[in-house]
Amino acid sequence: MKEKRIILIGAGLAGSLLAVYLAKRGFYVDIYERRPNMRTTKISAGRSINLALSLRGLHALQGVGLDQDILKIAIPMKGRLIHAPEGALNFIPYGNNDTEVIYSVSRGQLNMAMMDLAEGYDRVKIYFNKRCTGINFTTGEAEIFDETTGETSCVKAGTVIGTDGSASAIRYDMMKIGRFNYSQSYLEHGYKELSIPAGPGGKFLIEKNALHIWPRKTYMLIALPNLDGSFTCTLFFPMEGGVSFASLNTKEKVRRFFDEQFTDAVPLMPTLIEDFFSNPTSSLMTVKCFPWHVGHTASLLGDAAHAIVPFFGQGMNCSFEDCVVLDECVGRYGDDWEKIFSEYEALRKINTDAIADLAVENFYEMRDLVADPAFILKKKIEHVLEEKFPDRFVPKYSMVTFRRMPYSIALSRGKIQDTILSELAFGKSNVNEIDWNKAEKLVNEKLEKLI
Amino acid sequence: MKEKRIILIGAGLAGSLLAVYLAKRGFYVDIYERRPNMRTTKISAGRSINLALSLRGLHALQGVGLDQDILKIAIPMKGRLIHAPEGALNFIPYGNNDTEVIYSVSRGQLNMAMMDLAEGYDRVKIYFNKRCTGINFTTGEAEIFDETTGETSCVKAGTVIGTDGSASAIRYDMMKIGRFNYSQSYLEHGYKELSIPAGPGGKFLIEKNALHIWPRKTYMLIALPNLDGSFTCTLFFPMEGGVSFASLNTKEKVRRFFDEQFTDAVPLMPTLIEDFFSNPTSSLMTVKCFPWHVGHTASLLGDAAHAIVPFFGQGMNCSFEDCVVLDECVGRYGDDWEKIFSEYEALRKINTDAIADLAVENFYEMRDLVADPAFILKKKIEHVLEEKFPDRFVPKYSMVTFRRMPYSIALSRGKIQDTILSELAFGKSNVNEIDWNKAEKLVNEKLEKLI
Repeated sequence: MKEKRIILIGAGLAGSLLAVYLAKRGFYVDIYERRPNMRTTKISAGRSINLALSLRGLHALQGVGLDQDILKIAIPMKGRLIHAPEGALNFIPYGNNDTEVIYSVSRGQLNMAMMDLAEGYDRVKIYFNKRCTGINFTTGEAEIFDETTGETSCVKAGTVIGTDGSASAIRYDMMKIGRFNYSQSYLEHGYKELSIPAGPGGKFLIEKNALHIWPRKTYMLIALPNLDGSFTCTLFFPMEGGVSFASLNTKEKVRRFFDEQFTDAVPLMPTLIEDFFSNPTSSLMTVKCFPWHVGHTASLLGDAAHAIVPFFGQGMNCSFEDCVVLDECVGRYGDDWEKIFSEYEALRKINTDAIADLAVENFYEMRDLVADPAFILKKKIEHVLEEKFPDRFVPKYSMVTFRRMPYSIALSRGKIQDTILSELAFGKSNVNEIDWNKAEKLVNEKLEKLI
Repeated sequence: MKEKRIILIGAGLAGSLLAVYLAKRGFYVDIYERRPNMRTTKISAGRSINLALSLRGLHALQGVGLDQDILKIAIPMKGRLIHAPEGALNFIPYGNNDTEVIYSVSRGQLNMAMMDLAEGYDRVKIYFNKRCTGINFTTGEAEIFDETTGETSCVKAGTVIGTDGSASAIRYDMMKIGRFNYSQSYLEHGYKELSIPAGPGGKFLIEKNALHIWPRKTYMLIALPNLDGSFTCTLFFPMEGGVSFASLNTKEKVRRFFDEQFTDAVPLMPTLIEDFFSNPTSSLMTVKCFPWHVGHTASLLGDAAHAIVPFFGQGMNCSFEDCVVLDECVGRYGDDWEKIFSEYEALRKINTDAIADLAVENFYEMRDLVADPAFILKKKIEHVLEEKFPDRFVPKYSMVTFRRMPYSIALSRGKIQDTILSELAFGKSNVNEIDWNKAEKLVNEKLEKLI
């Protein structure tokens, strides 16, 4: 029997997990990673320091036996803790029970754990400081540039999967061949990471088990807990215009702005000004493309195929789900990569498009959260409907985060639910005024029972 | 006073016309064109052999005094001549009078005439066989590869405009800098050029003054007249699937298919089979991007900024209108290119997006034209409404083709008009059944008076 070999480009979260799935199927996997080995060299973990792991991601980790280990280094967040401008707090739980939580994990720790697991298989090799500079889609050869020696060589397994992230080199090459649909679109907002350090003895200075949000209509600050007692904060903020990264260009302006808008956070951020001017301002992009594969020689997976904005906390979870679906296709078709890639992209494309749109939508929800009484009322109605009709009405956030139904179904049911909520809330200002008979009628009429 | 100099990349239709506009404003213009000089070397004229020139394009040509010369080598087309499968003909005029016609022109002849005009100015130089391989957006330098000598050199004017078409090298470079929104999307259909030669003595073997259409639901054939009595035919056809370019893979299949579907055309196409297999199958793409400019150093114009599908016959007309708008901005801001580019793209982007969407829509209209009685009824109602309410109701086709109102207005008014037509036609099968009082009420209510 011939040796089944495959090349992955990129040993980030998606690449490392995919390598484990493929190794378990008996494949020899060579991963070429452009960065140094993060377990022996101190480097930035990539796009953002921490991530929200939820059911889809956990399920994918469970498939390779990694879920329990990761949960040990994760912090459960039970809901959103909303910080109003004058400092008032309002806790909004994510789910209806204690198991409906999301987990703050460190991108670096997670990635290192998965690289360790991957390299635990003899069949998996990770080559660091190796940048892919081109793909021959006819032969499946990859051109590899060695960042340390400056030499270029060719490697070949016949099949290459690009797990090389939102700026994928493989996808870039696919654009040069005909009839490749592609879009990249930027939000007007960018982001900057800031920090709330731990208190004495690693004490959490704000609620540990929550995702903190300071929503301010056109922008927002969020904070996620880290194991050492610190919080990683992210300011999502317009790039240009009146109140923007471009206009906050002096220490005094930044100080005054934060004092006014994030009054309760400022005393906890001793390095605010330094961080603001030394940390990069990053942009927020959605990438969609199709097809994801070229014959049996190449395909894309994870951010390389579908970079999304971070507002639903699903980027990583979605990429991990890609691995599960691809693995199921491998289960059906062995090493017939043309069939595997075709079915995988047919199953996934509609869903990754859906989460991309959901993620953009959720930005507007998050930053407007406390400001709009109509929105708060709808959230209250939603909560009641979920309790009354658990087999039909599941809030959009829960469908995405605590269920594994296809994202496309979550999107379409979410839209129907929105119309129901709008109809029930119309002209009302209090949840006690809602006509629950009408609600029952609408829910039964418009929402199929969930299987 | 310092010399005002600018570089254009590409001496196609948009580049040649823009050069003339800029020369008239006193600029020195250097055009780098990757192809040989088409006036001395026999080369393909580019994407398609003939084009439909209409009011917007004529107006732009008039601005440089070229309209009358071009009309001499153009053939007026007064309407669509629809060829039914069994050979029946049905003529649908484009407009309500003799001046509402469009013109079939040869891309090559038009381009050559405009190059001649451009080079008539001492200030304009066209360099052929010079391919732009990169732009430095900080300095405005362009890297130029000489196709004949193989040498690379740098040229600099401080400002470069990419008029280098749908596969623009300048736009490609813009994608590499941050926050550039971009999309390319392909239709499932491609196209192939075929031919109906002239009869004896240059006789037109089918109606000369019409755009011929053989609409067949999922595909269509069209034919435009040439000065020598021939017609250039274009088959718009699915790329893949049951009936497609991929499936018509033998001479017998092509022959049988054409005999069945285009019965009246086949006897006029003696080289059908040779043409079918020797002419390329081309794809149909829409490109949108934003922003179009980088500081004062570079901008895009024409297909480079907004490639559209050909179904509204507006690709060239739209690019020519770009030149007029850019020229007006030059009129306002002299050589302050940052201001010129900003205003030009703000004025144009909304309109080029609109024509891109209108062009895709029109494909479905054209190929379904004779097949759907509901559509035919709406066209008849439309015709009456136009006569009854000429200052409010102008058919979408006329707004785009015979008026110079912004494309975005044509798109939005077109949508309103569609809802009016649908409401009037609902449940009706004949134009005599229409409630004209209701029509008047709807038109007055929903459509602002045109200025």
